[in-house]
Amino acid sequence: MGTELLLGQILNTNAQHISQRLSALGVDCYYQVTVGDNERRLQQVLGQALQRADVVIASGGLGPTLDDITKEAAAAVTGRPLRLDDAVLARLEQWFRRGKRTMAENNRRQAMVPEGATVLENDHGTAPGLIVPAAAGKAVILLPGPPNELIPMFDGAVVPYLTARASGRPLRLVTRTLRFCEIGESALEERIQDLVAGQQDPTIAPYAKVGEVHLRLATKAADAEEGLARIAPVEAAILERVGEHCYGVDAVSLEAAVGALLAERGLSLAVAESCTGGLLAQRITDVPGASAWFKAGYVTYANSAKVELGVPAAMLAAHGAVSEPVAAAMAEAARSRAGADLAVGISGIAGPGGGLPDKPVGTVCIGWATPKGSGARTFRYWGGRDAVRWRSAQTALCTVRRYLLGRL
Amino acid sequence: MGTELLLGQILNTNAQHISQRLSALGVDCYYQVTVGDNERRLQQVLGQALQRADVVIASGGLGPTLDDITKEAAAAVTGRPLRLDDAVLARLEQWFRRGKRTMAENNRRQAMVPEGATVLENDHGTAPGLIVPAAAGKAVILLPGPPNELIPMFDGAVVPYLTARASGRPLRLVTRTLRFCEIGESALEERIQDLVAGQQDPTIAPYAKVGEVHLRLATKAADAEEGLARIAPVEAAILERVGEHCYGVDAVSLEAAVGALLAERGLSLAVAESCTGGLLAQRITDVPGASAWFKAGYVTYANSAKVELGVPAAMLAAHGAVSEPVAAAMAEAARSRAGADLAVGISGIAGPGGGLPDKPVGTVCIGWATPKGSGARTFRYWGGRDAVRWRSAQTALCTVRRYLLGRL
Repeated sequence: MGTELLLGQILNTNAQHISQRLSALGVDCYYQVTVGDNERRLQQVLGQALQRADVVIASGGLGPTLDDITKEAAAAVTGRPLRLDDAVLARLEQWFRRGKRTMAENNRRQAMVPEGATVLENDHGTAPGLIVPAAAGKAVILLPGPPNELIPMFDGAVVPYLTARASGRPLRLVTRTLRFCEIGESALEERIQDLVAGQQDPTIAPYAKVGEVHLRLATKAADAEEGLARIAPVEAAILERVGEHCYGVDAVSLEAAVGALLAERGLSLAVAESCTGGLLAQRITDVPGASAWFKAGYVTYANSAKVELGVPAAMLAAHGAVSEPVAAAMAEAARSRAGADLAVGISGIAGPGGGLPDKPVGTVCIGWATPKGSGARTFRYWGGRDAVRWRSAQTALCTVRRYLLGRL
Repeated sequence: MGTELLLGQILNTNAQHISQRLSALGVDCYYQVTVGDNERRLQQVLGQALQRADVVIASGGLGPTLDDITKEAAAAVTGRPLRLDDAVLARLEQWFRRGKRTMAENNRRQAMVPEGATVLENDHGTAPGLIVPAAAGKAVILLPGPPNELIPMFDGAVVPYLTARASGRPLRLVTRTLRFCEIGESALEERIQDLVAGQQDPTIAPYAKVGEVHLRLATKAADAEEGLARIAPVEAAILERVGEHCYGVDAVSLEAAVGALLAERGLSLAVAESCTGGLLAQRITDVPGASAWFKAGYVTYANSAKVELGVPAAMLAAHGAVSEPVAAAMAEAARSRAGADLAVGISGIAGPGGGLPDKPVGTVCIGWATPKGSGARTFRYWGGRDAVRWRSAQTALCTVRRYLLGRL
């Protein structure tokens, strides 16, 4: 799969998954290398990796076709010849029988195993994973490339293997990532500058994201408890300054944080979207259990759909679709149609086309409707269609959060 | 930024963007390395990269804080001391004045430039990019980490630089990626096995994606015309076998392909979604200009929202929300509400919870409503909440495509 990555045809989501797991296990990951399906370069990369690490994890290139050469390269650098494994072959034959297909001759290549390697069964495809022992107690772990095969295998078989190997290691990295909305990176940094300057352990690192900022607090400790105890006072000092902007910690997304607040208060939400085209509803329903707080979304892309939802045609004619009255009316109509407690409405110009002299691309109106009334505000975003859509959904979620915290 | 990648906190989208551009330019990219914000390891990686490549592109670590050390490492490996650059400093001071903020002392670090380096202006942030000359006519290019800063700088300044450098190179990679839906990887491979087996130039490589399969045809040629001429007969032979499943070529997404078909026929679309929660509408409106064919989406997450849309309450009670009659009724109601020519409806169980003995997680009903009538089919998907949602949207788009091609 390396070639596909080097051509930019896919994103390396496997690297992210593996990195997250390693970090949680306290296994240091110092290098990640992407290399194409080329024998010489692959062997050179695996060889170098074995020199600088105890365990090398490789993914992809275990398929049946001739450009799948990872296993051959691992066999070469570990000096372990490939042998046909009868158990793997039997499993393969069974896989094809179940799918009522004939096994191609080249699938037999997938039953070749480096001498002494441990086979990891693949429940979602034909390529087994392998743990290949190397010199000095080291190992090369080979995993299939497709994420739906790699992830269950990594979590099911490799994590326990690494946990067993890593036991007895003295220190692991413990982190807390504080997530902030409605404040920019520089404004955030300014308000905590003196804390950051005097701080060595835990370290404080800011990361700017689209529409939000993260602060990562990190320390090395014997276990999570010790690490978190060292992080806690620094975190408290930061939150005393900018706590109102901190919507969540670690992997909690803004939509999950808002969902949790809605669930806590027993309130339901509806949304009406134009330029975001369903992105807001999709993000809200990305959260498992969203049916507890989310009633309905209306993607009123055409003006006729806005009228059908309940926005007065005269209002659209007078103010234009991208206007505060229309965004508020979309929220009101969504709230009443869905029978929800709260609603937000988004109407804007995501681009690349559609900009007007007084409403350039990036102009977005966010409306709200609550038991206390309705309203709207206009924002001007930048950064292309995807960024404008993302920031719009972000602000709509922040608007709901503001209401739930009594700050709208 | 390397540390953030090694911890799995972010996806390496910069690598994908740069790889795509390099591939289009015909610049071979053989290695990608991720390394943390560690002086020794960073210098070692940059030094090795300079040995094996003519140009090394590094992103991230150009910020004002002390853990930003990429520039220092590049200065060390190229042997070019850092000097304060007055023009860069003036630009920085202007940037802060415009933002009505005081420039922190540590921002002066961002005005330090390796001797002899070319400065690339950053219109979206404070860190300038740098082209640092190295021995033997080689170069290290340093780019800021945030994608909204890196991408315009890469496209605006680095692409012209590389184009100038690469002129005179004899061969570039020319590829065509054929994209297939409603056929699995193995079924596709079986039908073209003999073509693949006898084929050396262009190469044919299959890639399994969630809900679709890609075939990449690749050759090295002096220019695109020569390469495409070599690819054309192989592509024609493949399409003769499995052309009905090929929805598009290269970067055309399924939603863009379906949108183009709708536009061509002057037909409009509406969607009603339950388990996909807005994903389908969001994908459709991801395509610029979607307002020409997309009318409205209804995210009827709650049963009450389905009834409000127009699904009979008695039908919901009799068959359950996840049933073919309800999926068809959702499509019919969406079609009539939105005044669209065509509509699809999705009702399913994305999981992780909500499974029933006769309708396990992954059960999804896809309904349609067209001028010729309505209908629905049931599918059983696997692979977790995200994959079930993606595959459902995929099948709904394929259903529209089938109708438009007269095959529904």
